[in-house]
Amino acid sequence: MAKIGFIGLGNMGGPMAANLVKAGHQVKVFDLSDQAIETLVAKGAQGAADVAACVQDVAVVISMLPASQHVESLYLGDDCLLKQIARDTLVIDSSTIAPESARKVAEAAVINGLPMIDAPVSGGTAGAEAGTLTFIVGGATEALETARPFLEEMGKNIFHAGDSGAGQVAKICNNMLLGVLMAGTAEALQLGVANGLDPKVLSDIMAQSSGRNWALELYNPYPGVMEGSAASRDYQGGFMVDLMSKDMGLAMQAAVSTQSSTPMGSLALSLYKQQQSKGKGQLDFSSIMQLFQQNGPL
Amino acid sequence: MAKIGFIGLGNMGGPMAANLVKAGHQVKVFDLSDQAIETLVAKGAQGAADVAACVQDVAVVISMLPASQHVESLYLGDDCLLKQIARDTLVIDSSTIAPESARKVAEAAVINGLPMIDAPVSGGTAGAEAGTLTFIVGGATEALETARPFLEEMGKNIFHAGDSGAGQVAKICNNMLLGVLMAGTAEALQLGVANGLDPKVLSDIMAQSSGRNWALELYNPYPGVMEGSAASRDYQGGFMVDLMSKDMGLAMQAAVSTQSSTPMGSLALSLYKQQQSKGKGQLDFSSIMQLFQQNGPL
Amino acid sequence: MAKIGFIGLGNMGGPMAANLVKAGHQVKVFDLSDQAIETLVAKGAQGAADVAACVQDVAVVISMLPASQHVESLYLGDDCLLKQIARDTLVIDSSTIAPESARKVAEAAVINGLPMIDAPVSGGTAGAEAGTLTFIVGGATEALETARPFLEEMGKNIFHAGDSGAGQVAKICNNMLLGVLMAGTAEALQLGVANGLDPKVLSDIMAQSSGRNWALELYNPYPGVMEGSAASRDYQGGFMVDLMSKDMGLAMQAAVSTQSSTPMGSLALSLYKQQQSKGKGQLDFSSIMQLFQQNGPL
Amino acid sequence: MAKIGFIGLGNMGGPMAANLVKAGHQVKVFDLSDQAIETLVAKGAQGAADVAACVQDVAVVISMLPASQHVESLYLGDDCLLKQIARDTLVIDSSTIAPESARKVAEAAVINGLPMIDAPVSGGTAGAEAGTLTFIVGGATEALETARPFLEEMGKNIFHAGDSGAGQVAKICNNMLLGVLMAGTAEALQLGVANGLDPKVLSDIMAQSSGRNWALELYNPYPGVMEGSAASRDYQGGFMVDLMSKDMGLAMQAAVSTQSSTPMGSLALSLYKQQQSKGKGQLDFSSIMQLFQQNGPL
Repeated sequence: MAKIGFIGLGNMGGPMAANLVKAGHQVKVFDLSDQAIETLVAKGAQGAADVAACVQDVAVVISMLPASQHVESLYLGDDCLLKQIARDTLVIDSSTIAPESARKVAEAAVINGLPMIDAPVSGGTAGAEAGTLTFIVGGATEALETARPFLEEMGKNIFHAGDSGAGQVAKICNNMLLGVLMAGTAEALQLGVANGLDPKVLSDIMAQSSGRNWALELYNPYPGVMEGSAASRDYQGGFMVDLMSKDMGLAMQAAVSTQSSTPMGSLALSLYKQQQSKGKGQLDFSSIMQLFQQNGPL
Repeated sequence: MAKIGFIGLGNMGGPMAANLVKAGHQVKVFDLSDQAIETLVAKGAQGAADVAACVQDVAVVISMLPASQHVESLYLGDDCLLKQIARDTLVIDSSTIAPESARKVAEAAVINGLPMIDAPVSGGTAGAEAGTLTFIVGGATEALETARPFLEEMGKNIFHAGDSGAGQVAKICNNMLLGVLMAGTAEALQLGVANGLDPKVLSDIMAQSSGRNWALELYNPYPGVMEGSAASRDYQGGFMVDLMSKDMGLAMQAAVSTQSSTPMGSLALSLYKQQQSKGKGQLDFSSIMQLFQQNGPL
Repeated sequence: MAKIGFIGLGNMGGPMAANLVKAGHQVKVFDLSDQAIETLVAKGAQGAADVAACVQDVAVVISMLPASQHVESLYLGDDCLLKQIARDTLVIDSSTIAPESARKVAEAAVINGLPMIDAPVSGGTAGAEAGTLTFIVGGATEALETARPFLEEMGKNIFHAGDSGAGQVAKICNNMLLGVLMAGTAEALQLGVANGLDPKVLSDIMAQSSGRNWALELYNPYPGVMEGSAASRDYQGGFMVDLMSKDMGLAMQAAVSTQSSTPMGSLALSLYKQQQSKGKGQLDFSSIMQLFQQNGPL
Repeated sequence: MAKIGFIGLGNMGGPMAANLVKAGHQVKVFDLSDQAIETLVAKGAQGAADVAACVQDVAVVISMLPASQHVESLYLGDDCLLKQIARDTLVIDSSTIAPESARKVAEAAVINGLPMIDAPVSGGTAGAEAGTLTFIVGGATEALETARPFLEEMGKNIFHAGDSGAGQVAKICNNMLLGVLMAGTAEALQLGVANGLDPKVLSDIMAQSSGRNWALELYNPYPGVMEGSAASRDYQGGFMVDLMSKDMGLAMQAAVSTQSSTPMGSLALSLYKQQQSKGKGQLDFSSIMQLFQQNGPL
């Protein structure tokens, strides 16, 4: 069993750290929220007074933070945490951030003698709790292999996308595409309904035809079509519009910096932002259905 | 075995009629092209001198024509074919046309004592030849059941979408969604590549994640990623941009007439029309990849 | 003074016919609504019992109808009005319809010895009442010159766009562009406001810069920026979303039939249809602002 | 006459500094390119060895740099130029950068006792040379008034958009809108031409109708319609696609950070990026016409 320092105990980081504790590791944890620390301590983790303490005397450092600036600030900021971590310690950042931020931090890590991977996840809080997350990893193969046993205790699938930053790129490409799939599926269902079709019948037909896609099959946005879907519980819970917008915003940033044309992704993002601007950022992202539904909620 | 009149022997209709002949039916055929008729006669069909002759003394009439105006003109035009078909003859129109045209013709058919279904297909010329088409049917259940044995000789899957016109609606919804999937997949792959990813690695990751969709898995638009794909043979063959544009144009028409908002579909159609306007309408629709690829053809 | 037959006395046709009466012409009028006829009779027109009576013994026939099917049905339908109009009578259709419908009717008119122009208008009901409409004319120069004195009594500007149908093409191109200007202006204003700018200051700056456009200057969609604008009276009155959608729908039809790529127009139309689908089709088209405004009306 | 330090002597900064020299000011200049310095020295400016020297003993500091990172690095970076400038010196940054960067630098300037305005320009290199630029200013009124005489020697119009950063916001809103106007105008012209209209006739009609906008009237994108336009010289010269993309990219960034929905701007940017990705970033932005023209250059 290994000693692990875990920084960032939010909705995702908390259960991820808990799974490492459950697997028998000695996990030191830190978060800006004392309560988040206490919750983990109650599960068997050891609380750290600050980030410096959290990374002392551990074999692996894992971070799970909200955005690029937090990750850059943690590792490269005034206290430059990277300089306080013992050489050869493995660093895993599971935050979803801009690829260029990921590359910048990883380069600095390597200069400090620290192998580092970016390992953003998908699977949501449910996956974090169940230990069934998907990790999309960027970084050296060797570092990934060192990380693998730890990742496997938090997740089920592990993909190696390429060098540093590639995990972030693959995740935001995937999520941009998902944003497109959901928007396209929603409007296709609405077009069918407006022309007299039953949304369930249409969903079944398209799921067995060339319109088949993840959103249609597993996350049907039309209320009542799929039991247990966010759509069938007023779009409560699930993957929030705010988070989809954040991920697609990272995609737009990556597109701008590489002169990539992404008309479909850009448009889909505008639709999610329409939802946000109406105060619906906390709804599940399949609530984009509401933009199209006639006489539905405004 | 039954007597069948088959009108329209193009790339799709020809092999469909041939499969009915092969199944042992007595098939009378008509097309404006003598050569098309001769090809079928050589396979055992009986040539008809005109559409009126083609529908005399048959139990089933099947038509496969290019567009709404041809179907309306055939059944409702000057000679009003519907009045020349014996009562209770089953009429199957497999053309992809506007739902309102399909409804108009079916209503007139019923008034003339003719059960009628709209049964547009997917599966392309390969499916037509192999007898593995998918039929998406609109019309009365009874009429569909009468039609089923014939459809099964030309296809593999049969879906019942609803009443008259519903087959057309379901097909154009599906194809609009497919148009969106392909465009979104193409730009996601390009974004990944521009940010340093290998298109095959990214495709594999997304195919196992929430970006999964028919276009990505079975019809990958990035050259070289999937053996045998249209993308891997310079977008020759396959499902032409022109046909995708036609189907999506029908979707736009259905959207306008029902005040349905279809931003993603509308944008995707504009992209396919960009390809058409550059003289690339005959390429496979996955050639939309070319719009995004940097330093690619154009 | 001339004898004129005027068919279609709605919000636009009514005041247009009234202006011809006021100018001293003998105007016979017909509409499906008896009350619409009576209103014009009260102003000095002569009521006609049916369309045939309306076009008897006149030098000019003018029609102002809702859509393509009404115009086709009037002139080409069962009673084929074109055959009941005396040779050499000038026919003016001021309806906004599909260019191909306009061409079809004009061709039939010419075959019947009737010079015909398509002369759709802009300027709204206010322009119709004030006699300040703009006519955008398609047809032979000679026919336009014959029509000019009559058009001048109903309008202020007369443009000659080209041959038959060209008036319709120019109008729908213009209105598609207007739909884009309004949507683009609305979102630019919202972006500025969300980033701390005063909408009036930003409007003034853009109106003197390269963002200048008709919608920004004369029809500002932001509430309170421009006195007397539709935006400043809750988007009541003005040019309805429903009408903008109709015109842009004609543009989409013209785009599909010529394989023209119109991404911006298609997207803008989808936004107007979003308004329609929320039951807001009767609001002024600048109400598209509501889609972007944060915490504004949903 | 005043002593001025001018940093950044590119295509825009060079002629701007030259105009200040011409007006009789003592101008110290710095650029990373020695040649750029020499050019200005030949016109009467005084070369500075580095940025620190450039800002010594001057009453006004003006900077004109390519992007946010350059401005942040200049004023806030390792040498923190702001600390080397004498208190009460006026600082004018005319670079087009992210509003949040502008605010960040201005706040730091004020803390260091330096009044600062952001004053991005429009008008291009021609305007810079002729001294007819438009300045869109953010910052305190008092600072703007101090700056005004200097701005007037480089430009013609000066707008006050609001507090720090507001100049940037107004400029990027305007340019996003301009990007939409150009794209919308291009596709409307193409739609007209594809439907048989003369592009000049259609341009004239729309310029006098509600489709009127800056791009149509002053910068017509259709080749041959307007003498002297970029379109009439193969889109050489003018305002490059690369620059339009940069400005619209800043707009997207501002939209993402304020959850503003900008579907039209996002789509237009995707179209400009399509041009870039085909190696056409150096063409004038009206070359977006090429995306729509049928059988035109690919």
